[in-house]
Order: sequence, then structure tokens, then C-alpha cells
Amino acid sequence: MKGKLYGVSTGPGDPELMTIKAVKIIENCPVIAVPRTAGKKHIALDTASQVCDLSGKEIIFLDSEMSKDPDVCEKAHERAAEHIAKALESGKDTAMLNIGDISVYSTFSYIAEKVAALGYEYEVCPGVTSFCAAAARLKVPLVQGNEPLVLIPSENCKDANTTFVLMKRARNLVKTLESDEIYAVENCGLENERSYSSADEIPLEIGYFTTIIAKKINGGKKI
Amino acid sequence: MKGKLYGVSTGPGDPELMTIKAVKIIENCPVIAVPRTAGKKHIALDTASQVCDLSGKEIIFLDSEMSKDPDVCEKAHERAAEHIAKALESGKDTAMLNIGDISVYSTFSYIAEKVAALGYEYEVCPGVTSFCAAAARLKVPLVQGNEPLVLIPSENCKDANTTFVLMKRARNLVKTLESDEIYAVENCGLENERSYSSADEIPLEIGYFTTIIAKKINGGKKI
Repeated sequence: MKGKLYGVSTGPGDPELMTIKAVKIIENCPVIAVPRTAGKKHIALDTASQVCDLSGKEIIFLDSEMSKDPDVCEKAHERAAEHIAKALESGKDTAMLNIGDISVYSTFSYIAEKVAALGYEYEVCPGVTSFCAAAARLKVPLVQGNEPLVLIPSENCKDANTTFVLMKRARNLVKTLESDEIYAVENCGLENERSYSSADEIPLEIGYFTTIIAKKINGGKKI
Repeated sequence: MKGKLYGVSTGPGDPELMTIKAVKIIENCPVIAVPRTAGKKHIALDTASQVCDLSGKEIIFLDSEMSKDPDVCEKAHERAAEHIAKALESGKDTAMLNIGDISVYSTFSYIAEKVAALGYEYEVCPGVTSFCAAAARLKVPLVQGNEPLVLIPSENCKDANTTFVLMKRARNLVKTLESDEIYAVENCGLENERSYSSADEIPLEIGYFTTIIAKKINGGKKI
């Protein structure tokens, strides 16, 4: 029988923020697949290894480069899918680990599509997003009442009178938003976590794993 | 010593989607506080009771009505805060349970503010949101690459060329969005879960616990 691929969200980095389901899936899979970009730490693997027994499991690394070239990305996803398919063909269930929640800006969706096209089944396990974890840490509710919430992964989008969650490479947007309250958590749940409570405090060269929460106040009242 | 209030996210309803941290906090607290609206099931309590040993714990219900009157809401939050403060004053740590993630449209933030004003400490434990759980269940990635994500809790906001996550009472917005792909999960992770993959399939009188994901395709390509 063919193995099945599980896309497993490991959450923002605090191993206790993994779900019970994620732990069970990982412990039941003989193969663990870990996306790896040159020179980067494997946060998802590190997180999982703190609560799951990984001894005796086969770890496969899915290598890719940070690239904006669609052809380069496409080839990396194809290689990853073929790598995973080998394990599945031999009947081994495989858990692919992803930080945060797997539906929010992960590479899993691209790879899973190719694995499915090769004839294998897959399942997805959700997790805690970095922006929910950051909001909890800061005790700042993300949205209340009828406020909309806009997630912005880069500088391709801006809006007015809302809560902005700036993820990934959107640090520079802070100065254009004219928000009245700015908060940030860098490396939330990890050992090197840092929090900030104003735009001035946030370093210009902030780390990639930073969630910035920007709130606009209208006439002294939260919108 | 005074007790501490813990705002605990129990996730979308599948008990296995609770985090390890949420389970630990609940098991360590002698008092469990549960928001209750007239005639409603207590999903958060139901979820927690499937994985946590609640025997011997004191359960307090925080009653409120579904109301848009700010004065009615304010008074309900005050009563809830006073109820919790009694337990904290007697030295008992208290876990207030909330479905989904506690930073996304929960009443906890209002109550926690009042509890803090009364001189007590609180902490927040994040969880899996309904929209991440729905995306995982549907195997539809919420956002890829540089797509922004807009959370809309009601009909007070619309935008173009993005992924829309329609939460709570925004069902009617579907027809105005002109989205090309519409998905929904009702009661995600619960026994009465139902999925839909087009606007026509989604009943007009859809349940309150429904996440609708609407995607716009631009010239045949996802934006």
C-alpha cells in the first residue's frame, strides 16, 4: 500500500503551541520531510523534536533557494515532490513539517499539488499562526466586533482604518501606514524572542520571523 | 496570593486541535470560566472536556445575551469580570475558555481588560483559528506568495482581487464579491461538520460557525 503525505503545522516555535494532532501524526510517520533553505535553521524540526520522539525516523531535507524566479521555485517544488514520492511509493507515511499554519504562506501547497498529481493522497493539519501567537503574547486583541483584518505579506497592499498584520518582509510599510499603535514580536515563542511596542523601537533590519501589528485609532476610538 | 486569569484558546472544535499548552493550563487551573449565551452549547467546554480531566474543578458560567447594544455588552463584561475576580481573590487560578483563537473576535479581551483594572494579572494562550482549520480541511491554501489576506467579520468591508475569509455573519457578502472560487466549512472539526465548494451549495441560512473562503482569479491566474 502506498504511503500518505501529511502536511503538519508546527506553530510559531514554542513546542507547547503544537497541537495534540500534530504530535500524533509526527509520531506515527516513519519519514519526516523538512523544507530547508540554504544556511537556515530548521525551526519546524527543532520545535517538533522537543515534544516528539524522532529516534529511528528517516529525516529528508527538501532543499530550495530563496528566489523570486518562478522557474527556480517550480523546479525546487518538483524535486521536493519526487523526493517525498519515493518514500510514499515504498509505503511510508510522511510528515512534512511547516512552521506556523500551513495554509498561510507556506510552500507545502505547491509541493502537495505535485505529490497529488503523481497519484498520492495527502492531508493537512492546521496550527497556530504567528500573528495569533504574537497577539496573545502582546495581549493585544487582533480584531474585535466588526473590524476587518488584513494580512499583508509584503508591500503590495495597503488599506486604511484597519488592523494591519505585517508579516514577512513588510517592515518598511510601517512608516506609510500612519497607524497610531504599533506592536511587534520577533521570533515569537523561541529563545531569542523580542517584543516592541512602538514603531521607533522596531529595528529597521528586523528578523524575517517578525509579526508587526499596527492599529489605527479614529477620533480616539478604535475602529 | 491572588490567582491569575488565563485566556485559553481551545481551537475550532476538534479536541486534537487543542495545543499542548492549552491542555496544561486547563489541567492546572482549579476554576474554569465559560462564556455562555442563552440557549447555546458550550463548544469550548465540550472541546476541553474531551482531552482534559475536569473532575473536581469549579465551572463558572459567564452569562451574556447576543446584543448590539453597547451598554448591554458593557454590563455583561463587568459582571463576568466580577465573577472571575471572586475566584482570583480567593487565590484560585482561573482558565477562561474561548473557541478558535482568542485574539480573533472573542469577548475575552473586553473581560480581561476589566479584570486587569481590578488589579489581577492575566495571560493569553493562542490557538488554531477557524479559518486555518477550514483551509486545512479543504486543502485550499489561504494565501501564497505575496497575496494579502483580509478577514471580514461582517458586511462592513470589501476589497478587490484578494482572498476573502468571511467569518461570522458575512454570508450575504458572497454574491457581491464576484469571486471565482468559493469554499466553506460549517462547524469545522465538530460532529455536524459540512463542506461546500461553490456559492450555490452554501445555504442562505448557514450556521454561525461557518468560514467562507472566496478566491478571485485574475485572467485565469491566482493573484
